[in-house]
Amino acid sequence: MTSQPQDLGQARQGMPDNLAIARDALLRPIEEIANRLGVPGEMVEPYGRGIAKLDLAALGALAKRQRARYVVVSAITPTPLGEGKTTTSIGLVQGLQQLGHSATVALRQPSMGPALGFKGGAAGAGYSQVVPMERINLHLTGDIHAVSSAHNLLAAMVDNHLHHRLGLDLDPETIGWQRVMDINDRALRHIVTGLGPSADGVTRQSSFEITAASEVMAVLALATSLADLRSRLGRIRVGFTRSGEPVTAEQIGAAGAMTVLLKEAIKPNLLQTLEHAPALIHTGPFGNIAHGNSSIIADRIGLLGGEYLVTEAGFGADMGAERFFNIKCRASGLTPDAAVLVATVRALKFHSGRYAMLPGKPLPSAMLRESPEDVRAGSANLVKQIDNLRIHGVTPVVAINAFPSDHASEHAAIRDIAEAAGVRATVSSHVREGGVGALDLAQAVVEAADGGSNFRFLYPDEMPLDAKIACIATRLYGAADVSFSPEARRQIDSYQQQGHGHLPVCIAKTHLSLSSDPALRGAPTGWTLPVREVRLSAGAGFVYALCGDIRTMPGLGRDPAAAHLDIDDNGEITGLF
Amino acid sequence: MTSQPQDLGQARQGMPDNLAIARDALLRPIEEIANRLGVPGEMVEPYGRGIAKLDLAALGALAKRQRARYVVVSAITPTPLGEGKTTTSIGLVQGLQQLGHSATVALRQPSMGPALGFKGGAAGAGYSQVVPMERINLHLTGDIHAVSSAHNLLAAMVDNHLHHRLGLDLDPETIGWQRVMDINDRALRHIVTGLGPSADGVTRQSSFEITAASEVMAVLALATSLADLRSRLGRIRVGFTRSGEPVTAEQIGAAGAMTVLLKEAIKPNLLQTLEHAPALIHTGPFGNIAHGNSSIIADRIGLLGGEYLVTEAGFGADMGAERFFNIKCRASGLTPDAAVLVATVRALKFHSGRYAMLPGKPLPSAMLRESPEDVRAGSANLVKQIDNLRIHGVTPVVAINAFPSDHASEHAAIRDIAEAAGVRATVSSHVREGGVGALDLAQAVVEAADGGSNFRFLYPDEMPLDAKIACIATRLYGAADVSFSPEARRQIDSYQQQGHGHLPVCIAKTHLSLSSDPALRGAPTGWTLPVREVRLSAGAGFVYALCGDIRTMPGLGRDPAAAHLDIDDNGEITGLF
Repeated sequence: MTSQPQDLGQARQGMPDNLAIARDALLRPIEEIANRLGVPGEMVEPYGRGIAKLDLAALGALAKRQRARYVVVSAITPTPLGEGKTTTSIGLVQGLQQLGHSATVALRQPSMGPALGFKGGAAGAGYSQVVPMERINLHLTGDIHAVSSAHNLLAAMVDNHLHHRLGLDLDPETIGWQRVMDINDRALRHIVTGLGPSADGVTRQSSFEITAASEVMAVLALATSLADLRSRLGRIRVGFTRSGEPVTAEQIGAAGAMTVLLKEAIKPNLLQTLEHAPALIHTGPFGNIAHGNSSIIADRIGLLGGEYLVTEAGFGADMGAERFFNIKCRASGLTPDAAVLVATVRALKFHSGRYAMLPGKPLPSAMLRESPEDVRAGSANLVKQIDNLRIHGVTPVVAINAFPSDHASEHAAIRDIAEAAGVRATVSSHVREGGVGALDLAQAVVEAADGGSNFRFLYPDEMPLDAKIACIATRLYGAADVSFSPEARRQIDSYQQQGHGHLPVCIAKTHLSLSSDPALRGAPTGWTLPVREVRLSAGAGFVYALCGDIRTMPGLGRDPAAAHLDIDDNGEITGLF
Repeated sequence: MTSQPQDLGQARQGMPDNLAIARDALLRPIEEIANRLGVPGEMVEPYGRGIAKLDLAALGALAKRQRARYVVVSAITPTPLGEGKTTTSIGLVQGLQQLGHSATVALRQPSMGPALGFKGGAAGAGYSQVVPMERINLHLTGDIHAVSSAHNLLAAMVDNHLHHRLGLDLDPETIGWQRVMDINDRALRHIVTGLGPSADGVTRQSSFEITAASEVMAVLALATSLADLRSRLGRIRVGFTRSGEPVTAEQIGAAGAMTVLLKEAIKPNLLQTLEHAPALIHTGPFGNIAHGNSSIIADRIGLLGGEYLVTEAGFGADMGAERFFNIKCRASGLTPDAAVLVATVRALKFHSGRYAMLPGKPLPSAMLRESPEDVRAGSANLVKQIDNLRIHGVTPVVAINAFPSDHASEHAAIRDIAEAAGVRATVSSHVREGGVGALDLAQAVVEAADGGSNFRFLYPDEMPLDAKIACIATRLYGAADVSFSPEARRQIDSYQQQGHGHLPVCIAKTHLSLSSDPALRGAPTGWTLPVREVRLSAGAGFVYALCGDIRTMPGLGRDPAAAHLDIDDNGEITGLF
């Protein structure tokens, strides 16, 4: 849900804008939606109109119910505009509902920072939206702010430890715990703190990242209970002593208070789609340095609340779905029954390598010409991403997310590519039509889930960290090889020695290519993945490898979306898309 | 509500702690509490158990109802432990309710940062608390976070303006808009931002303040409608162009988005006291560089919702009540009907000058000895603060906030001092007994409000800024004179020239003395108020004068409260007082 909304460019001719559609929606009482999930009323805590938090006791209350089919929605490698995983996830549950099934969608909470930076929100589009969209795109129930608070409390306590020389002999040079803020603010990327008189702290180089990049966010997404959250937070590593011993949040004395600050945030947020299907919007970890999936707890509740739980995994299947399988499912013990791979005409044309696209800009008009040939020229990416799902024992359904500018011949081309690869593809027009536009997709997913999956992890726990990285790079990304910088090599060795070798890995690379070079389209081969640095998220429970330029604090553009936001004379929001 | 809770030291022998009392409380449904205020159900938005936001439409729905009596609660100059204005305000409405009146209390939302820094929360104490206290002391409904977001968005847009050179020719040296965070973090008091490559912003010296110090918080507290909020935010001054023209948030293009970010935060939060009286907890501006009062909108709703609206004003009567009268009532057009002045045995002993007290430390045991003589030795402060209220045409009732360590002879001494000054004093034991402990106080307030007030501002709008400062200093603080630094003088002149001379002034000085020297007890005379700097809060609509050392970003101590917070095996919070 961090990518660009679907309505950029020419996609939405003749349709009201997202905010207008969302505002005209008649919401059902959220208690009614919760009731449909089977969550007892006393476990439903309304948070403003149409939004409720679900008490974790719901897990116990629903424990005896049959588990729903678990469907993960991923995509081919997207263009800078995004290919509509969120709208497809929403459209799919609406389609399933139209077929008479009970279905819930689980999505990440979008960062507020980027929503104010680029034009547009991230709660779906057209007639496949979650509402109330203004709340989703702004503070929702404050979970991201709670993550910021917990994160920054730990940062303040770390600096306080240095300031008062509180016993741990923490080495200031080794502190890897930055501060976070949910605002796009490039001026905070490199800062010096603790200037001024000695009463004002110890001087250090530091930085701010956007809150979605906080390990606390990944921890919250992967926690399976409040007690698990508490112990994961305690394991967070903030730095080292001068004698080289790791120092954790537990040792700083912050983990209890951080848990207290997250006591409400751990409860999933329940909303509804425009067609009143339950929507769980919960946690928003980054899709590069973290696993980019919504919370395990939300999925667990959703899985006990109906026949289908559809969850979106960030970025392309090589990234979001890979982490869904190897990080999230490892932590949850849950296994998927089916997968959806979203493909678009524009993305396949993009992978032809014949067009350039820029974030925040409309499509080049040449891309709008009817050209099944362009689509076929980009087919390698689709084929590879289908394979990336099948490697995990899950055969996807390809969802062709239809745009008004598409041509039937182009849809047919995608269908042919998919069928040649042995998978089913259906056109879905959920943005323009809502659930009825996704009936074929829903039917295909029902059949795929009935067929079941042979889910398997890509690698076993005991595989060494460098081999895990190489395994993902060569088997999923199509790399010929992996190169480790001396620093990365040293880091991997130390994590192995310190007993973290069993952890899964998360590879932070561009999401705009299967490779680590955003300029490479299609399914590049023969390239080497350059691992610059490897970091440990001991609390979240993974190691992440930095490959290429990964920015964890976005900046604002010359004309940020925030400059267009306002209220009108009726107090209604204007300028949110 | 930012001062220390009443249960520090020996005050609470034999009583369960605040959290235990609060947790055992049986909350009534918040809809029932709202109904008691007369707010229609569709304007009540629950935010978790026992908490609701009230839609501003409630102001219209209640417009024809009779206005309640408006009672402001202030105090003598407090000790570092605080004298219980919050508990007295809560106890008073519970007492009024016991007498058969409908009464609402309006309080500031406490900062979360200090709640994690010092031991203890700020939602009242004992049997005069607002519940659920865990939520009040943590995120509540996220309003403070929304203020942080709006504030920091403007900061990011200012730096973005510099980075992209967006036309206003903003002079980086003149930027007075810092960033904020609701965490006690001394390392952020003096920072340098925008380091690194030029893509990472323009390098500047900067700082973080705690969110309560944000002008956005003062703006939110003083706004009378969403449209008024919008225009106040637009008037915020962030710096100057190189040619010396002021630059506003409106010119930066941030004011609309800031309003959108505050759209939920402008709605007052409704909770209840332990005896189910309505409690409006809304906004928390600083008590020194800002006016330290809860919101006008909450007061307005509360005034239409019953017979009495009791609101607390921060710090002593020289500060909180003065600003309530001259800043808040000026902005609201409302006038008070009665005032309560909280006094304690310990504070009067403190003002004898015979004892030293430190924040976070228990009382010196010598202060616990029976000594009406010590109380009489501190009487000058009480007499002066009574006078400070009477200058505004409001005769206070003195509330003697009883502690278990008090002696009857000491209470009698306070009563004698008050009566000699011509005002009534009653002992109130609301902390140990709830509303029944405040019956005498409630009765006295009813009679005082029946008598009415002759409210008047201390100074007219047209008085020049320097004269306003001198007026407050000499008439309320007891200063012999005021000295202005050359910078302060220059600033005052420029504000006068720029058309801000009509604004009220807010004097930022220590709250621990009537003077600007925290070491001076009682009612010091013959001293000079040193005005170091004068700043403009053009959005909030006041000018503030810095006198002495005013810290706008607290630090954590060697043993912060956060280190004692945790959850137990049942998921309940421990260590919050």
